[in-house]
Amino acid sequence: MRSVSIGVWVGVGSRDETPGLAGAAHFLEHLLFKKTPTRTAASIARELDAVGGELNAFTSKEHTCFYAHVLDDHAAMAVDVLADVVVRGECAAADVEVEREVVLEEMAMRDDDHEDLLADAFMTAVFGDAPIGRPVIGTPEVVGSLSAHRIRGFHTRRYTPDRMVVAVAGNITHREVVSLVRRAFGPHLDPDATTAAPRRRTRPARAVGAAQIVDRDSEQTHLMIGMPTGGVDDPDLPALSVLNAAVGGGLSSRLFQQIREERGLAYSVYSSLDTFSDVGTFSVYAGCNPERAGEVTNVVTQILADIAENGIDRDEITRARGSLRGSMLLGLEDTGSRMHRLGLGEIDHGRYRTVASSLRRIDGVRPVHVSAVARKVLTHRPSLAVVGPYRREKDLPAELRTLVDH
Amino acid sequence: MRSVSIGVWVGVGSRDETPGLAGAAHFLEHLLFKKTPTRTAASIARELDAVGGELNAFTSKEHTCFYAHVLDDHAAMAVDVLADVVVRGECAAADVEVEREVVLEEMAMRDDDHEDLLADAFMTAVFGDAPIGRPVIGTPEVVGSLSAHRIRGFHTRRYTPDRMVVAVAGNITHREVVSLVRRAFGPHLDPDATTAAPRRRTRPARAVGAAQIVDRDSEQTHLMIGMPTGGVDDPDLPALSVLNAAVGGGLSSRLFQQIREERGLAYSVYSSLDTFSDVGTFSVYAGCNPERAGEVTNVVTQILADIAENGIDRDEITRARGSLRGSMLLGLEDTGSRMHRLGLGEIDHGRYRTVASSLRRIDGVRPVHVSAVARKVLTHRPSLAVVGPYRREKDLPAELRTLVDH
Repeated sequence: MRSVSIGVWVGVGSRDETPGLAGAAHFLEHLLFKKTPTRTAASIARELDAVGGELNAFTSKEHTCFYAHVLDDHAAMAVDVLADVVVRGECAAADVEVEREVVLEEMAMRDDDHEDLLADAFMTAVFGDAPIGRPVIGTPEVVGSLSAHRIRGFHTRRYTPDRMVVAVAGNITHREVVSLVRRAFGPHLDPDATTAAPRRRTRPARAVGAAQIVDRDSEQTHLMIGMPTGGVDDPDLPALSVLNAAVGGGLSSRLFQQIREERGLAYSVYSSLDTFSDVGTFSVYAGCNPERAGEVTNVVTQILADIAENGIDRDEITRARGSLRGSMLLGLEDTGSRMHRLGLGEIDHGRYRTVASSLRRIDGVRPVHVSAVARKVLTHRPSLAVVGPYRREKDLPAELRTLVDH
Repeated sequence: MRSVSIGVWVGVGSRDETPGLAGAAHFLEHLLFKKTPTRTAASIARELDAVGGELNAFTSKEHTCFYAHVLDDHAAMAVDVLADVVVRGECAAADVEVEREVVLEEMAMRDDDHEDLLADAFMTAVFGDAPIGRPVIGTPEVVGSLSAHRIRGFHTRRYTPDRMVVAVAGNITHREVVSLVRRAFGPHLDPDATTAAPRRRTRPARAVGAAQIVDRDSEQTHLMIGMPTGGVDDPDLPALSVLNAAVGGGLSSRLFQQIREERGLAYSVYSSLDTFSDVGTFSVYAGCNPERAGEVTNVVTQILADIAENGIDRDEITRARGSLRGSMLLGLEDTGSRMHRLGLGEIDHGRYRTVASSLRRIDGVRPVHVSAVARKVLTHRPSLAVVGPYRREKDLPAELRTLVDH
């Protein structure tokens, strides 16, 4: 490996916004790249482009991550740019006005991307108007009116050293990283910090189990059906990962085989597990012809009901464990995913779990664990999100209306 | 690295289809996974999932690639499955009926994905009804009616050993690969083959320079403006790559800086270079609010006209070379991209170009080369594709209508 991936993780996301600040964390992430005391957006872009490096950032419900991927020779420059942006990004009023338009364009793009739109609608269906149920990108009203002053206030209050972690992976030593980070962050380092402080619990997320229907003049209906789960520290997580792999994680999963391979009802169908600090979701996605949305819903609910009652076969569990093992090892061969794993481990758990230890947790999952979590999670009141040509609720196929009205 | 990436490349794509077979290459790619004399889709899926391996395929205008990504211990199994599928996939009539629905769903998904739809429309705008101008996925009419017999005929006629290449990268020796391929492909190997036979030229692609408008009730207008270029063997390619990087390849490019950073007109804006055996395209993409599509068009055409006349600055060229160098090295750290580079080199050129040699070609690009290709390519009659809320041509902003009517 000649590359180095560097991530500055901030334990702040859309979940930390009041409704009047909806979208501020993401807007701020954009703005910090626009200007620092010694750099402009153009000069930052030129520094990175000159060496073919990647510089970007993302905001989620609970994290904001600023990252770079460069050849080892340029690690010092990348750490310096990242620190400058994250700590000293200025959010100048003129930049706020230009970048506001960019974020509104990004929102319009999300509105045209039915799968993204569905994912946002699903979180609202599960968690209602709790902060975790709101879209990361915010609302047009708030993004359209947020002032530079309020965004700077969010930056100052939320980007505190105790909630920030620098994670680095690639062709560089720990000693070199420490020296680069000391130099670049200087007085912003917390000298007492050992591990990142845990996320502040403001309002516990509670699943409401509702439905969200989004009307779009689309060729396909996009469906998401799911239930709440525990969060990142839930001891059920290894068993849930095995369950997820068997239900809809791979080509041999029940969903893929029964919906796509046997019946040809969808091109894209899968299940997902998404976890946050205190809660999570297990969900099934399918995109299909609107005329088949009822049949797809039936097959999905039958698969879930069957597994809730009977669990999964021993060979499905063996296969799911092997699948998780292989895909974890295959997925950790690049410096970016290693950096991601390090950063998340530190900021969410205050520690690094070795790959060997993660594999042992998966290998320890027994059928009885999977049956127990299947019964617990899959019998929960389902939440539903639908994007498709449905002006009114009564336009939905009967099978979906039943789920909505439950 | 513990992984191995294996690709079976077939020099066959949608460009080899007559209009009555539009979509056959892609449909065949789906079908081959459904059944072999000794395997079913479910058993193939179980074999790969049990070890967390990835098995997939893609079809393009000139290639079909079946590939696997597995841990080194499972390379023999993966080569065996790939050979079985590619050589002995059966295309049974019952499977054709189920998979037809899956491909029609994939087509509906493409129709809802405005950027994918735009890319297809753009190729039609540039090349008209020549085979290269038609979408890889085909038409609903042809895909809706293709018989198992005709698809099998395409398989038999087109998947000939002289047009197939196996490329492997990762934790495995050349000797081991040769032995695995000999065993798995057996009598299907061409004993006389040294390099892959060049693509058969049926009908040379000629740019027609037209416009394609696709009406969609979308939040954003998606624009693609571009010109034809030479193909993969064109000596201008290194200079064109430098030009493309400077125009719209990175964050410091003219398009990104002038359209997004300075004016906030778009979230996503970039240029691309796509090359085929005899022709290629240089294109600019932007997605923006329909009300700004005219302004975006103006800025794009001004940037292109300026560069056609004045070329680009010496420091833009230096930066573009550095950018291409760095991103090539960063992009080759995983076994999948190495396999891809090996396979394409062998099937398109009959040889492997070392990374060092590719870097030398880029480093040799001088301002005079870039000016020359800019003048040649950017002054060509532009083609245009638009996806957005435009029922009739006269709904388009004036700036776009001018391009359409040129």
